[in-house]
Amino acid sequence: VATPAASVGHHGPVVRPTLAPDLRAELEEVLGPRGLVTDPDVVAVHTVDWTGRFRGSSPALVRPASTGEVAGVIEVCRRHGVSVVPQGGNTGLVGGSVPMGGEVVLALGRIDDIGPVSGLDGQVTVGAGATLGALAAVAREHGLRPPVDLAARETATLGGMVATNAGGLHVVRYGPMRHHLAGYEAVTGTGAVLSHLTGLVKDNTGYDLGGLLCGSEGTLGVLTRVRVRLLPDPAARAVGLVGFEALDAAVAAVAAWRRSLEGLEAAEIVLRDGVELVLATSGDRDPFDRPWPVYVLVEVAGDDDPAPAFADALAATDGLGDAVVTSEPGPRARLWAIREEHTTAINALGAPHKLDVTLPLDAFAAFCVEVPRLVTSVVPEARTWLFGHVGDGNVHVNVTGLAPDDDRVDEAVLELVAGAGGSISAEHGIGRAKRRWLHLNRTPAEIAAFVAIKRALDPDGILNPGVLL
Amino acid sequence: VATPAASVGHHGPVVRPTLAPDLRAELEEVLGPRGLVTDPDVVAVHTVDWTGRFRGSSPALVRPASTGEVAGVIEVCRRHGVSVVPQGGNTGLVGGSVPMGGEVVLALGRIDDIGPVSGLDGQVTVGAGATLGALAAVAREHGLRPPVDLAARETATLGGMVATNAGGLHVVRYGPMRHHLAGYEAVTGTGAVLSHLTGLVKDNTGYDLGGLLCGSEGTLGVLTRVRVRLLPDPAARAVGLVGFEALDAAVAAVAAWRRSLEGLEAAEIVLRDGVELVLATSGDRDPFDRPWPVYVLVEVAGDDDPAPAFADALAATDGLGDAVVTSEPGPRARLWAIREEHTTAINALGAPHKLDVTLPLDAFAAFCVEVPRLVTSVVPEARTWLFGHVGDGNVHVNVTGLAPDDDRVDEAVLELVAGAGGSISAEHGIGRAKRRWLHLNRTPAEIAAFVAIKRALDPDGILNPGVLL
Repeated sequence: VATPAASVGHHGPVVRPTLAPDLRAELEEVLGPRGLVTDPDVVAVHTVDWTGRFRGSSPALVRPASTGEVAGVIEVCRRHGVSVVPQGGNTGLVGGSVPMGGEVVLALGRIDDIGPVSGLDGQVTVGAGATLGALAAVAREHGLRPPVDLAARETATLGGMVATNAGGLHVVRYGPMRHHLAGYEAVTGTGAVLSHLTGLVKDNTGYDLGGLLCGSEGTLGVLTRVRVRLLPDPAARAVGLVGFEALDAAVAAVAAWRRSLEGLEAAEIVLRDGVELVLATSGDRDPFDRPWPVYVLVEVAGDDDPAPAFADALAATDGLGDAVVTSEPGPRARLWAIREEHTTAINALGAPHKLDVTLPLDAFAAFCVEVPRLVTSVVPEARTWLFGHVGDGNVHVNVTGLAPDDDRVDEAVLELVAGAGGSISAEHGIGRAKRRWLHLNRTPAEIAAFVAIKRALDPDGILNPGVLL
Repeated sequence: VATPAASVGHHGPVVRPTLAPDLRAELEEVLGPRGLVTDPDVVAVHTVDWTGRFRGSSPALVRPASTGEVAGVIEVCRRHGVSVVPQGGNTGLVGGSVPMGGEVVLALGRIDDIGPVSGLDGQVTVGAGATLGALAAVAREHGLRPPVDLAARETATLGGMVATNAGGLHVVRYGPMRHHLAGYEAVTGTGAVLSHLTGLVKDNTGYDLGGLLCGSEGTLGVLTRVRVRLLPDPAARAVGLVGFEALDAAVAAVAAWRRSLEGLEAAEIVLRDGVELVLATSGDRDPFDRPWPVYVLVEVAGDDDPAPAFADALAATDGLGDAVVTSEPGPRARLWAIREEHTTAINALGAPHKLDVTLPLDAFAAFCVEVPRLVTSVVPEARTWLFGHVGDGNVHVNVTGLAPDDDRVDEAVLELVAGAGGSISAEHGIGRAKRRWLHLNRTPAEIAAFVAIKRALDPDGILNPGVLL
């Protein structure tokens, strides 16, 4: 790399780095003609995250077609002292897959094969670059579905989802990606290939390297293939929208339903101001005769229509205001739209600061009351929009009316989260965006353990430098 | 340690090691009078595993009462170059908690507090030394149960269960211990305290140290507290015993039930010779009019009686011979006894070699046919007894008629397992017993990664030396 220009901040100007001739020749030998891209226009597409907040630069995009080629790339780059940023669908929110220091971008898109689905246990081995949508299509042919679902499904890749331990909508029932990982293949920072694609659930033959790579944000190894468990797709679904007078009643109700409703697949919270914004944008009518301060959208699935059991659970719920429940696909989608259109409606007010955090359930209600006050105390003209996965304590804190580079509100909110025992990153990870606040959640001893593990698997620090640590 | 006598083999004579006076004084200062035990008779109880196969020796038993005392012990021992074997209930099968090299035994029994059960998410923080039985008693008061159940419940501790990633009977539905770990507190080999007891399911703020410690067999850190998720205890249960003519039909049937029966909690396989042995021992009558070569014991749970749905699933099962299904507690227990009494009945023939392995489901039936032939080809007078958790591919291979130290059959069976893509350790881990065969399942690159991680968290190698690596 002739000019390894480090960008200044998130938007700093950069001199485009170029590949040294000998490095180029060695990469070409590993990758063949299709695998090495230096056309600046093509490379540029891979140097910006989808929010536009992180803009880096890179001398080259490498597109290996196999685990062996990934190992070759890592060996060559390591020898030349050049760092690498692994990139899947590049749909993260924390700048974890963007070359902010002039790194080579290693895109996994060509390793996208989806293997046969095992009829006995529903497992499948998937190339890291396969999208969630492509996997879902294969799963559907077998009456199955991927274990994690999320909005970016047509772009997000399985490798990225494992590397960030993605969660999505159904964590309340099935847990995050880590719980569904039945095997892995990855290349560490030394170029070593770790492959354990056995798919055995009961397997205690050493440290859980798969679970360690899962959520490591590309800093310990480049995932090349993963073996995941597909889940049965229940035949029947019911969706309910439930109005509450108070947040704590909503949290308690969801906790009770988790125990009484075996098929509870999602429990999403939205607040009155967000619902009003969505209804004003869409023109849809309010499902209730009167406004409620808090709404919970619930999906229950089962082999038979779960609506009767759900109605029983609602009848036993304390503090409930009103509820609509439907098993019909059209009305179900209309209820879901009230939750799902929050993102678009809020974005239309101007790019929000988005903080994806988790609170302990017993601190959830108080946090949701406190955070808008805190935000306006820091920036009076800012406005807070809250929605999220109340079953897991996961809140999406969206703040509009802030300058893009104004981090004061982010810092205040994350301090509030950590002070309440919460996590500053529910999903997406720490990346570059939250690195300066990692200490809010992790002790020096824990961070020292992270650094020691990083050195163990990537001794030269060439994998995703500046991310997480 | 004046005489750090290493035992020869599993049973070698040992000279009892003693504590150097300055080490003793420093440990006394950390632990107080109750925490340091050097009485040989008391120490001796902690130097033998429950199978009697591993007999070590130790200069001292330390019984810390807090995480801080554990950290103090590790610091003192590290400074003196003395190794430590963490010990929970000492119910493992692979010699992973026995001081075979004259190590100090660090027993967690005094750290056995069980915290309040969260009404919102059913989580509880538990001292590593609390037994599964004690946790189950607390859980019952809340209508809940521990996420993992196993036969040694009155002795096995939560710390040991996490350190070995225990699975037990219900893995087919709920997964192993690692899936239920919501927080951890541990002391690494440097004396550093890693504490992350947040209980947040959506929490991506660095590497998954909890998952890494889980299954690490005490070689990376000493777990002192764990936060685990308790599960709702379904109101109704049905148990069935199903006879099959052939193993492959039984495997296929269980795979189909996993998809069609949401409440499938256990699927255990037993074979005719084992059932005959059990019935001859107990005097109970055969539940069927005729013998079947293969039986599957199934438990299904739900809020309502699951027997009708189970009957429907049986009616749709190919290759099924005969079945009895009951929802009544007494008859349920009698069916379970046919499976559970296998251990006692086989032990009565003379201490068996016990190999706990997992096969890929598509190799399970062929393995069960092949392994008895293989065993008699190695030792003609030996006899093989197979039973296990067919839902997970987990078989308990018991071989009677072998000399205790004759490893030829063990090696042949483990090679057969690995050759079929299986795991040489379904549960319990590698310990000392299977260390020489780790290479059957793990590549040199993977073992090098294990060693690098071990060095990262226990640079002087004082935690459970000789176990796993």
